[in-house]
Amino acid sequence: MALSKAKLKELRALATKKGRDEERKFLVEGVRLMHEAVGSGAEILEAYYTADLLDQPAGRPLIQKLSRRTRPLEQVSARELSSVADTIHAQGIVGVVRQKHATLESLLRKDDGESVLVALDAVSDPGNLGTMIRTCDWFGVNGIFIGERSVEVVNAKVVRATMGGIFHVPIVPDVDLPAAISRARSVGYTVYVTDQNGETHFDRITYARKAVIVFGNEAWGVSDHVKSLADIRVAIRRYGAAESLNVSVACGVVLSALHRLYDDE
Amino acid sequence: MALSKAKLKELRALATKKGRDEERKFLVEGVRLMHEAVGSGAEILEAYYTADLLDQPAGRPLIQKLSRRTRPLEQVSARELSSVADTIHAQGIVGVVRQKHATLESLLRKDDGESVLVALDAVSDPGNLGTMIRTCDWFGVNGIFIGERSVEVVNAKVVRATMGGIFHVPIVPDVDLPAAISRARSVGYTVYVTDQNGETHFDRITYARKAVIVFGNEAWGVSDHVKSLADIRVAIRRYGAAESLNVSVACGVVLSALHRLYDDE
Repeated sequence: MALSKAKLKELRALATKKGRDEERKFLVEGVRLMHEAVGSGAEILEAYYTADLLDQPAGRPLIQKLSRRTRPLEQVSARELSSVADTIHAQGIVGVVRQKHATLESLLRKDDGESVLVALDAVSDPGNLGTMIRTCDWFGVNGIFIGERSVEVVNAKVVRATMGGIFHVPIVPDVDLPAAISRARSVGYTVYVTDQNGETHFDRITYARKAVIVFGNEAWGVSDHVKSLADIRVAIRRYGAAESLNVSVACGVVLSALHRLYDDE
Repeated sequence: MALSKAKLKELRALATKKGRDEERKFLVEGVRLMHEAVGSGAEILEAYYTADLLDQPAGRPLIQKLSRRTRPLEQVSARELSSVADTIHAQGIVGVVRQKHATLESLLRKDDGESVLVALDAVSDPGNLGTMIRTCDWFGVNGIFIGERSVEVVNAKVVRATMGGIFHVPIVPDVDLPAAISRARSVGYTVYVTDQNGETHFDRITYARKAVIVFGNEAWGVSDHVKSLADIRVAIRRYGAAESLNVSVACGVVLSALHRLYDDE
C-alpha cells in the first residue's frame, strides 16, 4: 500500500529541525539503530520498511518485535522509503521515535556515589557530536548535557554517528551550560574543562568521584564563560606538529584516562 | 584572466582518483592547508586564487610566499575556483601539489632508537583516515603505512581532515601490509594489533622502543592475516553499552597511552 501524500509530507517534515522541534519526534534509519531503539525501550510511534528487509538476517526479528508495539508498521516501496530517509541507502527501514530527553536534575547525583557527566559546549559538526555520544556510551558516562549552541542531537547524521549511543546514555539538550555547571558544582561535582592551554596534563589527574568533563567547539574550544567555572583545566600534551586534535578524539583520550584510576583502586 | 577549457579539464581530473593516479598530483584547498603545504616544503606546482583571498589576514602572505616558487600562480573568478574545488567554499585558493610519498625502508629504524609507526588496514571512511593522520601527527608518530585496501590518502576529504598532518608525517600508501609488518619485525619492531577481543588492555602495555601499532577497518577491524602477525593484541576496555568505538577515537586512545610511558621514564 502506498503512503498517502499527507503521510509523506509529515515524514519529510521530520527530516528538518523545524519539523522535529514541532512534533518532538525524530527519524531513526536502518536495522541496527532500530534494534537499539527497540532494545532501549524508546517509544517507536511508526515504522516503514521495504520488502527486502525481510530477507536480511536481522530484519525479520526486528519486524516481529515492532509488530508487538508499533502502529502503523507498514511495508512501502524502496522509492518511498528513500524519499523520506536521509541516507542514500536507508537500509530498509525508517522509524518515527518520540524525543525523550533527560533532565539536568535527574542526572545530578546528590549522594557521594560515583558519577561522570560530560558537558558539550557548541559542538558544531554532527559527526563529532554523534561520535562523542558513542564514545561516552563506550566509557560508561552517566549522562551528557549539551549546550544551546551545539548542533541538534536528533539530527539524522548525529543519530547515525552515535551508533545507538543516543538510546543508551541519558542526554539533556539545549542546556544553559554556565547555569548547569554551577548547579553541578553546588551538589559536589568537580568541573574539568578541556583546554589546550590547560595547566594539567590529562594523564596526571586524579578524577573526583563526581566529575563533570567539558568539551568545546571544534575551532575555538570551550567558551570563556564556561572555562571560568573550571576547577581544573585539562590538556592533552602534544608531541608532534599538529595544531589541534579532533574534538571527538580528545574526548576519547580524556575519558579513557578517567577509568584508569578507577581500575587501580 | 579566465582559465582555458583545457586547464579547467586538467584541474577537474585531479578531483578524481584516476586523474590523481595518472598525474601523481593532488589538489589542496584553503589558506590553512596551503600554508601547511608551503611550510613543509611540498612541491606546489600551480595555484589559483580569488581576489577575496587578498583581503584575508593569512591570504596575502601566502600569495607572497607562493610567488617565489609557484608558476602558474593566477587569480581566477570565484565561479572558476568552485568548479574545481571539492568544498563548497574553497576558501579562496586551490593548489596543485606533487604526490610525494615515503618508502617503507626509509621509515624503518634499524638501530635501537625509539620509533613508533602506525599501520592502517583497510580504513574506508575518508574522515576517519584523515583524522587518524591528524592524530598521529599530534602524538608525534614517526611514520604511517597504509594498506592497499584503504581509501586513497590524497582524496580531498582525507587531505582536509588531516588538518595539515599529511604534510607533517611521512606516509607510505598502497602497502602490502603483511609483508611490511613482517619486514618491520625482522628489523626489531614489536607489533601491536588493536583488536576488541585482544587479551591486553591498552593501558597495561609497556610499549617497546620500536613499535608498529595496527588499526583496522571500521566494521571488521584488522584482517585475520595481519592479526596473525601480532606480538600483542591490544584492546580498549568497555564500560558501557556501545558495541564499538570509532576507529579514529580508538587510535587517539591507544596513542595517548604510548606516550605516558615515555614520560615516566
